[in-house]
Amino acid sequence: MTFSQMWAELAPIGRDADTGGYRRAGWTPAFREAEQWFWDACRVRDLAIENDTIGNVVAWWRPDPMVRSPGVVTGSHLDSVPDGGAFDGPLGIVSALAAVDTLRSQGFSPVRPIGIAMFVEEEGSRFGMPCLGSRLATGVLDPAKALALRDRDGVGLAEAYARAHIGMDPAEFGGSDITTMAEVFVELHVEQGRWLVDPPEGRTQSVGVATAIWPHGRWRLEFGGRADHAGTTRMEDRADPLVTAAFTALAANKQARVGGARATMGRLEIDPGATNAVPERVRAWLDVRAADQATVDAVVAAVMGQAEERANRDGTTFGATAESLSPLVEFDVGLADRLAHVVGHAIGDGSPAPLLPTAAGHDAGILAAAGVPTAMLFVRNPTGISHSPAEHADLDDCEAGVEALAAVLADLAGNSRGGA
Amino acid sequence: MTFSQMWAELAPIGRDADTGGYRRAGWTPAFREAEQWFWDACRVRDLAIENDTIGNVVAWWRPDPMVRSPGVVTGSHLDSVPDGGAFDGPLGIVSALAAVDTLRSQGFSPVRPIGIAMFVEEEGSRFGMPCLGSRLATGVLDPAKALALRDRDGVGLAEAYARAHIGMDPAEFGGSDITTMAEVFVELHVEQGRWLVDPPEGRTQSVGVATAIWPHGRWRLEFGGRADHAGTTRMEDRADPLVTAAFTALAANKQARVGGARATMGRLEIDPGATNAVPERVRAWLDVRAADQATVDAVVAAVMGQAEERANRDGTTFGATAESLSPLVEFDVGLADRLAHVVGHAIGDGSPAPLLPTAAGHDAGILAAAGVPTAMLFVRNPTGISHSPAEHADLDDCEAGVEALAAVLADLAGNSRGGA
Repeated sequence: MTFSQMWAELAPIGRDADTGGYRRAGWTPAFREAEQWFWDACRVRDLAIENDTIGNVVAWWRPDPMVRSPGVVTGSHLDSVPDGGAFDGPLGIVSALAAVDTLRSQGFSPVRPIGIAMFVEEEGSRFGMPCLGSRLATGVLDPAKALALRDRDGVGLAEAYARAHIGMDPAEFGGSDITTMAEVFVELHVEQGRWLVDPPEGRTQSVGVATAIWPHGRWRLEFGGRADHAGTTRMEDRADPLVTAAFTALAANKQARVGGARATMGRLEIDPGATNAVPERVRAWLDVRAADQATVDAVVAAVMGQAEERANRDGTTFGATAESLSPLVEFDVGLADRLAHVVGHAIGDGSPAPLLPTAAGHDAGILAAAGVPTAMLFVRNPTGISHSPAEHADLDDCEAGVEALAAVLADLAGNSRGGA
Repeated sequence: MTFSQMWAELAPIGRDADTGGYRRAGWTPAFREAEQWFWDACRVRDLAIENDTIGNVVAWWRPDPMVRSPGVVTGSHLDSVPDGGAFDGPLGIVSALAAVDTLRSQGFSPVRPIGIAMFVEEEGSRFGMPCLGSRLATGVLDPAKALALRDRDGVGLAEAYARAHIGMDPAEFGGSDITTMAEVFVELHVEQGRWLVDPPEGRTQSVGVATAIWPHGRWRLEFGGRADHAGTTRMEDRADPLVTAAFTALAANKQARVGGARATMGRLEIDPGATNAVPERVRAWLDVRAADQATVDAVVAAVMGQAEERANRDGTTFGATAESLSPLVEFDVGLADRLAHVVGHAIGDGSPAPLLPTAAGHDAGILAAAGVPTAMLFVRNPTGISHSPAEHADLDDCEAGVEALAAVLADLAGNSRGGA
């Protein structure tokens, strides 16, 4: 089965008929259908499927099916942001399956096992915690804390997990040996910016190799006021938390522009949320990223300071809680250089593939921070748009990605010396 | 049964255990439970219950039970805004029942029928249209348009109505003779501001009589942008509709303060509403009121102009639709003066009760605009807070309201000459 055929099979799962965007949050029926598709694709290929007790999956192609030993792991995720694109996540999974097919059609026999990983709830769109599956697998997130998370409808992670994994004992939740089984991890992903289309130097190319992931944080902001009648309450008698929240959204936008960072307020909850009532409370989420931690910290401090000051003027209250903080990830330099050469030879003129940073979080970043030698391959995105139904990559570039990944896997798993 | 006993019976219905606020949107189970309570209270009193084919109810105390003729109607509504207070609406219903009890205990026999009305979906919190029941009953809202309305969960009004009124033919929806049966309408309501507590002249009093309802409008604002990744999309490449919406919320707040009006943005919907995605679209609702139409128009024009200009700068789109427009209502001056004297004699020293305007919409305003001689009595609200769990009226003031309403009904229904 070709890349295109697999892509066509996976495409309709969880796609919204109106928007064309995907709704595959972790453990939802749409997500589980996509996961089932992945299991079936692994079974057809005689890969040995291993589920941890988190929801992550690794399907192994072993030199000796009877010997379970660590090896080279590639893969990505199948969940999406609400109304997300088709490529963010699934491209890495489908390309991994296609790369295995390519290697087999070339008669390649791995010396070291090759695993295809699927991490659960990478976007954090259901339980608010990005890279949930890899954070649990690497031990940076406590299973008890994860089980206590709730989605927007109040459904707990424990319940969502139990519904999806019938017969599993929640007491066993949180176990994984992915970090010991992965001697090296390579994630292929659609680029989510325009670096490969419009590089600072050199010419545009299909595939690049990541150097780093920008530091990144998510904060939950709480604005408190006093619910009141929208008609009868004089403006001077109000304590309207939406006014403070609106000011904070503009402050975040401005501070990010001035400070050379990126700040987004993409989610708000208003209580009670009625047209004719001054709100009682507003919850908003702030996402901030930059090339270095100092810039993130400076922007966040400026925004929080302005929000506090405005709350004083509006007679409202303001508080902020960090929901997730991801420090700068610098990928293994030796591994990135080696893969740039492998990719350059496989799909280019032999000169190394371009090296680029990214401002998006990935499971690869969590594994790298946990000490697993890790690399990422990015496939060109003509518009740079992501987390949107308009997210796109040309088929030629996707196929170049498969070829590049196959060469990387052959390089890393084709000798007994170890990859990194 | 005393006012307090009835109040205690009605209090738990639809009350949120966490906030203490009410969630009694039209035709919801909580609303229907409150309606059932009203029906039972009317049956116990041998009142003749008449349901129109909208969802409004009038329960009649007739001089001759066999003769159906127009009369004096009082009443209010039982639905609430989300997390609303206990008094807005129910106070008018419970006071009407208590006033009938008072008149009967005094041996009063009406010469003209007295009706207690309950209008449905006054707040418009479920289907977005305030005074839905009275607008339909007076013919200013087309039944076909109403049936096409949908709530936040996508449930149509036709379906909500059919579920609540088993056996009703939706084709019959929209019929009512309330305007011909009501020769005069008097609505008692908790005050939603602090006029009676802190009057421009004179001393604070328990009950006042309304002179006018401020003009009022609701607009749905649509902000369009481009969904994108919150990390990888440069600030200068974004078209973020939340930024434009936030600016508009601040502009509305400022223009209302400068222009002597009231403007509120209490409800927003963000699509897709994810922490790590620049939104594709934001819907916001703007509520504007002022003492006169020219001020409302000027504030709305200024806000719309600024939103448009900001959208151009943000690379977003902006559009606005008026969802409801309620012009200034001036209540019958002769009737108001007469009731001020009746109330002054009933509960005061004989000097007329204070006359005051209100900035809140009411079914009384819709009936007045349709030509029914109409008046309103307001009961003092010590904090002025409304549309909030903190809404309150002291029991003494509520009992004074019952006494005042009983005197008004005796005056209007105690002679055959007609009330207004």
